[in-house]
Amino acid sequence: MSEYILKISCSDEKGLIYRISDIIFKHKINIIKNDEFVGNCRFFFRAHLEGELDTISFQKSLELVLPSDTLVEICKKRKKDIIIFATKETHCIGELLIRHFSGEINANIKAVIANYDDLKPLVDKFNIAFHAIKAQDLSRKEHEKNILQCLKQYNFDYIVLAKYMRILSPHFVKHFEGKIINIHHSFLPAFIGANPYKQAYERGVKIIGATAHFVNDDLDEGPIITQDVIPITHEYSWQAMQQAGRNVEKNVFSKALDLVFDDRIFIYENKTIIF
Amino acid sequence: MSEYILKISCSDEKGLIYRISDIIFKHKINIIKNDEFVGNCRFFFRAHLEGELDTISFQKSLELVLPSDTLVEICKKRKKDIIIFATKETHCIGELLIRHFSGEINANIKAVIANYDDLKPLVDKFNIAFHAIKAQDLSRKEHEKNILQCLKQYNFDYIVLAKYMRILSPHFVKHFEGKIINIHHSFLPAFIGANPYKQAYERGVKIIGATAHFVNDDLDEGPIITQDVIPITHEYSWQAMQQAGRNVEKNVFSKALDLVFDDRIFIYENKTIIF
Amino acid sequence: MSEYILKISCSDEKGLIYRISDIIFKHKINIIKNDEFVGNCRFFFRAHLEGELDTISFQKSLELVLPSDTLVEICKKRKKDIIIFATKETHCIGELLIRHFSGEINANIKAVIANYDDLKPLVDKFNIAFHAIKAQDLSRKEHEKNILQCLKQYNFDYIVLAKYMRILSPHFVKHFEGKIINIHHSFLPAFIGANPYKQAYERGVKIIGATAHFVNDDLDEGPIITQDVIPITHEYSWQAMQQAGRNVEKNVFSKALDLVFDDRIFIYENKTIIF
Amino acid sequence: MSEYILKISCSDEKGLIYRISDIIFKHKINIIKNDEFVGNCRFFFRAHLEGELDTISFQKSLELVLPSDTLVEICKKRKKDIIIFATKETHCIGELLIRHFSGEINANIKAVIANYDDLKPLVDKFNIAFHAIKAQDLSRKEHEKNILQCLKQYNFDYIVLAKYMRILSPHFVKHFEGKIINIHHSFLPAFIGANPYKQAYERGVKIIGATAHFVNDDLDEGPIITQDVIPITHEYSWQAMQQAGRNVEKNVFSKALDLVFDDRIFIYENKTIIF
Repeated sequence: MSEYILKISCSDEKGLIYRISDIIFKHKINIIKNDEFVGNCRFFFRAHLEGELDTISFQKSLELVLPSDTLVEICKKRKKDIIIFATKETHCIGELLIRHFSGEINANIKAVIANYDDLKPLVDKFNIAFHAIKAQDLSRKEHEKNILQCLKQYNFDYIVLAKYMRILSPHFVKHFEGKIINIHHSFLPAFIGANPYKQAYERGVKIIGATAHFVNDDLDEGPIITQDVIPITHEYSWQAMQQAGRNVEKNVFSKALDLVFDDRIFIYENKTIIF
Repeated sequence: MSEYILKISCSDEKGLIYRISDIIFKHKINIIKNDEFVGNCRFFFRAHLEGELDTISFQKSLELVLPSDTLVEICKKRKKDIIIFATKETHCIGELLIRHFSGEINANIKAVIANYDDLKPLVDKFNIAFHAIKAQDLSRKEHEKNILQCLKQYNFDYIVLAKYMRILSPHFVKHFEGKIINIHHSFLPAFIGANPYKQAYERGVKIIGATAHFVNDDLDEGPIITQDVIPITHEYSWQAMQQAGRNVEKNVFSKALDLVFDDRIFIYENKTIIF
Repeated sequence: MSEYILKISCSDEKGLIYRISDIIFKHKINIIKNDEFVGNCRFFFRAHLEGELDTISFQKSLELVLPSDTLVEICKKRKKDIIIFATKETHCIGELLIRHFSGEINANIKAVIANYDDLKPLVDKFNIAFHAIKAQDLSRKEHEKNILQCLKQYNFDYIVLAKYMRILSPHFVKHFEGKIINIHHSFLPAFIGANPYKQAYERGVKIIGATAHFVNDDLDEGPIITQDVIPITHEYSWQAMQQAGRNVEKNVFSKALDLVFDDRIFIYENKTIIF
Repeated sequence: MSEYILKISCSDEKGLIYRISDIIFKHKINIIKNDEFVGNCRFFFRAHLEGELDTISFQKSLELVLPSDTLVEICKKRKKDIIIFATKETHCIGELLIRHFSGEINANIKAVIANYDDLKPLVDKFNIAFHAIKAQDLSRKEHEKNILQCLKQYNFDYIVLAKYMRILSPHFVKHFEGKIINIHHSFLPAFIGANPYKQAYERGVKIIGATAHFVNDDLDEGPIITQDVIPITHEYSWQAMQQAGRNVEKNVFSKALDLVFDDRIFIYENKTIIF
């Protein structure tokens, strides 16, 4: 038997769940789990289904009975294909490589692209394609052109920024809307921008954090997926915060990617609804 | 418009949500929020409904289309009536009194029963009936008989043990199955029984906690509602743990009671399902 | 035997602990606990002492052997006298009143000053002076003048802003430098200013928090004492965040005040060192 | 300049810090950081020192002025040599391998010993000696004899049990007292023994955790180093708990090992004092 993930969002009305469950029932497919949420007059519904399904006719049946602004996604459960972008730090990419190696992550790493070649020895150990696409002496535009060129050879679902320390241009981001996930090394919206640990040190905060989010046009302003924090004290230099923060970064990142790869997230009005 | 809470549990089958939402739809009542869960072949469903409803006919309609082992509860949203049992400590009862005073708790405190009179001055401030029912020189049976006698004058939904430092007999508990909520000052099942902080100190743990649970026949073995913990260090004596633990106790207790009073909990096989 | 708290800060040099412990030893007083920290070439030392002490000669002996920029504070352990400022919300002040009533807080509440009289019934229950000093139709200057006038009748160590929803002028703050503690209902520096929960809702964060800090000239920019957070989800409206946030606010506030009242905090360069 | 870690424990007396800092001062060595703690009449002191030191004469000078039951350890800061024991799971060993590769862990992994060969492909990637010492068809005694034989070729400071799913005999443990660190997949002392996640599931707890501890004779009863927890809900099967628990396990383990490798821990009366 196959498994499917169904995602629906539309204006809220009475009887939506009745109509949806009617269609599901008539297609003789079983609901393993379903979740729904209504916020700001918008209805969100996700179901994990089991059985055999003609997805095209199923989608059409749903669209027929649901409001005209309905978005329906129905797809077979499968591993996602991803490209990792990184720079030099090992903790986030290392976590992904180990979990990928152990089959614990619901994704295939198709390639790693980095703006330095420091990570090549690590990535090579796991027999994954590594592309060092250097940014030095290039304009952002030229650099991204090279990356886009490299990406052409791959089919992929998501780009995963595992501490990729460069800003992506709106032009680049537009190519992959809702498909790029970043880990930011602060508890957003605190300490947007460069060196958040130094900013945190200077402000004298007692907690530091990390934020995984989808990337949009505005730096560090995309829809937040997960966040977590750890307590710190006056004894932490900003370097010590950075060191301690690495654990939070990789845990938050890992958790966010699990949610993305399992199709658990809706993006709506720059926020996430997560089931 | 009225609000209702509908709770259903039954053996899992295909089409349950379809059947339930069909009945809801036909009764022209709106779903504000619904949740469902299937575990060990048992289906649990809770809905927050809005509209006007003949609850008896509604319940019958549901029972007609659902499996024979179905339990349906449907009731209008309302404040719960509660009796607090306490001993001497102020932190849990104080929290309840303040939140009750501010209207932040979805319950009416009908009375406080204590086995000492230390708390009388505090309870009196809030004009709530206080009964000191002393246990000294009495058998457990006699003491509980006095309590039961006192309780007769009240209609109430729940008994809330706000650091009531006596064990209730199975006989007493049987009168109020699923209706007594306790706060235990440890992270159960660690440190069952007396003076858990001393036990924690002696074991040298690095985290202490508290557990809110329904009371059943076995001491500290009832269905767990909520738990939380705080980190400690070697610097904590057991008295310091006790002091620090008070915050966790009252927070965990407060959170658990909110869940109980909002009808968010199913008890099944000595566990809780919480929506 | 008396107990004393000794606090020293000075430029860091070799042998400071040796010189300090030499003086302590010669005064035949016992160290119950001591802590030290060096950050940015500044040395901070706190000791909890037990015995009988001529504090003036003790302080002089210390100053003689320590660098010229040394600050020494030595005082007998005692309950602090505090004034609470509040507005309408009960959760933070309620927590203080209960803990004060139970003797769990190392302070005497001398009076409550509020810009509305809503809290009078609650404060009256605990037989504490309540002054409603209304701000309506007054300039900030006039209102603060009235407050200062009222404060004249009290000796106090700290002003404690238990959800006091008005901004204090730099002029007012200057009177009580390092003596005013505020609870801000966000995880600073995120969401400075008004209605942080609404800001948090709009940004779509997954964690909300609270920050206790000393008040200085700049709104929400004073030295941070403690912070804590709770996870939230897309299901939280900003009102639900506000409700859930109250627990964090009062816990963070309570913890910060314990630290202040126990003389555990150094303020240096807009940060806190906490032992 | 060299760095040293000094650890002292002895019966508590007046003037200990004075005597110690006197000796440190006379040896013209600088204190970067020092910590002390007194519990149950026992004094614990740790200092991070910087300078050049004749450690033997330094130790003698200290012993001369300190109580007769004093234990002094003074050693140059250096990377620790470790042997990893594992079975089949990758998360804890993977974390160690990545952090070792990146130089983030203050230790050299000399070899991995496992009772199966499943982990060989992973360990080989990092060019670390891997010994599969199978337990099948062997008595515990024979198996441990084979391990001891294998260990002879290595000099090492610690044995690190990275999810080694076999119980070590008291005989084996005695060889390496205070030198074996284990990660237990529960919040000890809850759920001692086999399959704690299943036990946790059956009890219906709302939080699960992990515990890093030194190994002593009694299963899961050794001195606790660090613990951490994560919240769970009724939606977690025990397999889902196990999956979620892996993150906690590896984080707790990683943190505990950092503390061990930095000589921050005293073991006393089956507890740890951690600076």
